[in-house]
Amino acid sequence: MPDRIYLDWNATTPLRPEARQAMAAAWDMAGNPSSVHAEGRQARRLVEDARAAIASAVGARPQDVVFTSGGTEANALALTPGVRRGAGQPVRRLLVSVIEHTSVLSGGRFSPDAVGTIEVTGSGVVDVDHLRARLADGPPALVSVMLANNETGAVQPVSEVADIVHQAGGLLHVDAIQALGKIPFDIKSMGADLITLSAHKVGGSKGVGALVLAEEVQGLEPLLRGGGQELGRRAGTENVAGIAAFGAATTAAMAGLTADASRLRLLRERLEKGLMQTPGMIVFSTDAPRLPNTTLFSVPGLKAETAVIGFDLAGIAVSSGSACSSGKVQPSHVLAAMGVGRDLAQGAVRLSLGWSTAETDIDLGLEAWRKLADALLRGRRNTA
Amino acid sequence: MPDRIYLDWNATTPLRPEARQAMAAAWDMAGNPSSVHAEGRQARRLVEDARAAIASAVGARPQDVVFTSGGTEANALALTPGVRRGAGQPVRRLLVSVIEHTSVLSGGRFSPDAVGTIEVTGSGVVDVDHLRARLADGPPALVSVMLANNETGAVQPVSEVADIVHQAGGLLHVDAIQALGKIPFDIKSMGADLITLSAHKVGGSKGVGALVLAEEVQGLEPLLRGGGQELGRRAGTENVAGIAAFGAATTAAMAGLTADASRLRLLRERLEKGLMQTPGMIVFSTDAPRLPNTTLFSVPGLKAETAVIGFDLAGIAVSSGSACSSGKVQPSHVLAAMGVGRDLAQGAVRLSLGWSTAETDIDLGLEAWRKLADALLRGRRNTA
Repeated sequence: MPDRIYLDWNATTPLRPEARQAMAAAWDMAGNPSSVHAEGRQARRLVEDARAAIASAVGARPQDVVFTSGGTEANALALTPGVRRGAGQPVRRLLVSVIEHTSVLSGGRFSPDAVGTIEVTGSGVVDVDHLRARLADGPPALVSVMLANNETGAVQPVSEVADIVHQAGGLLHVDAIQALGKIPFDIKSMGADLITLSAHKVGGSKGVGALVLAEEVQGLEPLLRGGGQELGRRAGTENVAGIAAFGAATTAAMAGLTADASRLRLLRERLEKGLMQTPGMIVFSTDAPRLPNTTLFSVPGLKAETAVIGFDLAGIAVSSGSACSSGKVQPSHVLAAMGVGRDLAQGAVRLSLGWSTAETDIDLGLEAWRKLADALLRGRRNTA
Repeated sequence: MPDRIYLDWNATTPLRPEARQAMAAAWDMAGNPSSVHAEGRQARRLVEDARAAIASAVGARPQDVVFTSGGTEANALALTPGVRRGAGQPVRRLLVSVIEHTSVLSGGRFSPDAVGTIEVTGSGVVDVDHLRARLADGPPALVSVMLANNETGAVQPVSEVADIVHQAGGLLHVDAIQALGKIPFDIKSMGADLITLSAHKVGGSKGVGALVLAEEVQGLEPLLRGGGQELGRRAGTENVAGIAAFGAATTAAMAGLTADASRLRLLRERLEKGLMQTPGMIVFSTDAPRLPNTTLFSVPGLKAETAVIGFDLAGIAVSSGSACSSGKVQPSHVLAAMGVGRDLAQGAVRLSLGWSTAETDIDLGLEAWRKLADALLRGRRNTA
């Protein structure tokens, strides 16, 4: 599709050139990484090189990286009753922030009555007082708080959360999918015990992810059993090409992180300045720390689905809330948790920027928005 | 690697050109299939076209195809307590043939005490009398019998098994990974309730598979929860490129199936005729129906690991038993189940052929074997 403008990077990031090269190279290596012949050893090397790249990006050891089929599987693997640190107590319940991805909200392998929730503030940031209260009233908990929210971009106080969780004898799982390659972080300084990553959000291929463990984490029960792959933590022939691309994309994303973040922040300022010219415009979570690339906005009376289609017809890809929720009629669970009313929430449109976003993309996006807003908001007044 | 000869197709099949083209085309489509914009709809179309191709290949409805991250995940999804046909009884136990892949032997989501085994004959074929006896002594069972064994190539009497299982009120899962594209089959005429497929065994990409359901199958509990993908049966952003390649590879494999099977059968006859010139040579499961491409052989005193390395140094990729077991010291569980002694089993080498195997590959493979046999078997006598 020529001349399309892509402002939907939080849902799907185009494949980076480095990932493309890595996948094409992997195509010529037919070997199964479990085979002992030269083809097998070559494939094994691709997987292990990628493992080292992912480990390096988040400050972990390569042997603590478990490749999965994506963020959803990594989350399901992480949310296991019985995980513990060293000789510590195994966790027996799960506490998830209400703004987590649906794959975390579904509770993994905890029984529904062992899953509780932690509220967020009106800015979309985890309420640490509520977390403290929830931790105080039960056995050791696994707590799941994402590093940055996929809809608002709000960065969560994960280090503070980690201290609170550990003081209560619990473990912390951090879904860092949206943050990887956008803000710097490190498994140790963050204090996380388990972190989830996804390849396609850094410009790798869809269908690849990883769960990364802190050194002392024990008791992870495999979700897929059979072969001895991934040190027995995840059976199944590895997605060699996808894993190689994940490594290459992550390395590229980390190399460009500082420069990209500054550039994206400037582009987003330009974007939000333009958006704010629309009367009634609200950009969510602006009083929280945010990823540099994400803008979630709404205007009273706007219908997000209509706006997404309008943008699409104008040649611009944008999102209504998270892609996983698209097509569903109900408004974002994130905005609902932030106390945003239904009228405003149902108009929420997400624009997100990435490494190839140019200033002209922002300007053309704003031009399209102005025309759309004129039509859609005028239409609303006429039919109201 | 120039001039390498690839006789390890059951472990890893090189990517078909059609799969390569499909993946490259998918690279340019960044969309998340759950997104409503043009990029999302394009990605959705790739996934749905592949679903139709897979459904067509096995005689199922597209809506009954669930894409997974490979055969291991499809097997884990299939082996679920509670599956049933229509208003029938949900299954409460699992019976697996002893020659199943380790991902089936691990029992999926059944508790270990609800899993039983079914013996095989000396030819490596399921013992249907033993199956009948096992079915008679308990509640409704899910039975898992593969269509063709990955080590011996022995084709199992799946239609007969289906009749026996259904008469006992049970359900049949068939791991058809090795059979797809090598012998014709159909979910309905086979009588299977669930079948597992894997992309890379037909020349697609590693890390993609599918579970296909018969129309009346109910009660499949998702393994991955969160988003509503795959009609709620498997959450997670789809591996669009891998799925597209799976569809393209399957279509190509099915188009060439009849011609390939005849050609491979002739090549294998040539191969086995040559092998039989070695004194003491045994080819397993020759008195059972077999896939046209697979030869599992041994010679008393041979060590498979040494032979695989010897072949590898001669530029030829072969396998010792299944790839998933490679590197493990214990001999094949399949040969053990067939009553093959440890001495013979530890020498078992698998040669398997595919669409690009040429007559010269067979001849060079045999030449390498003769030299190896001379060296290895003479060496054995000298050191014995």
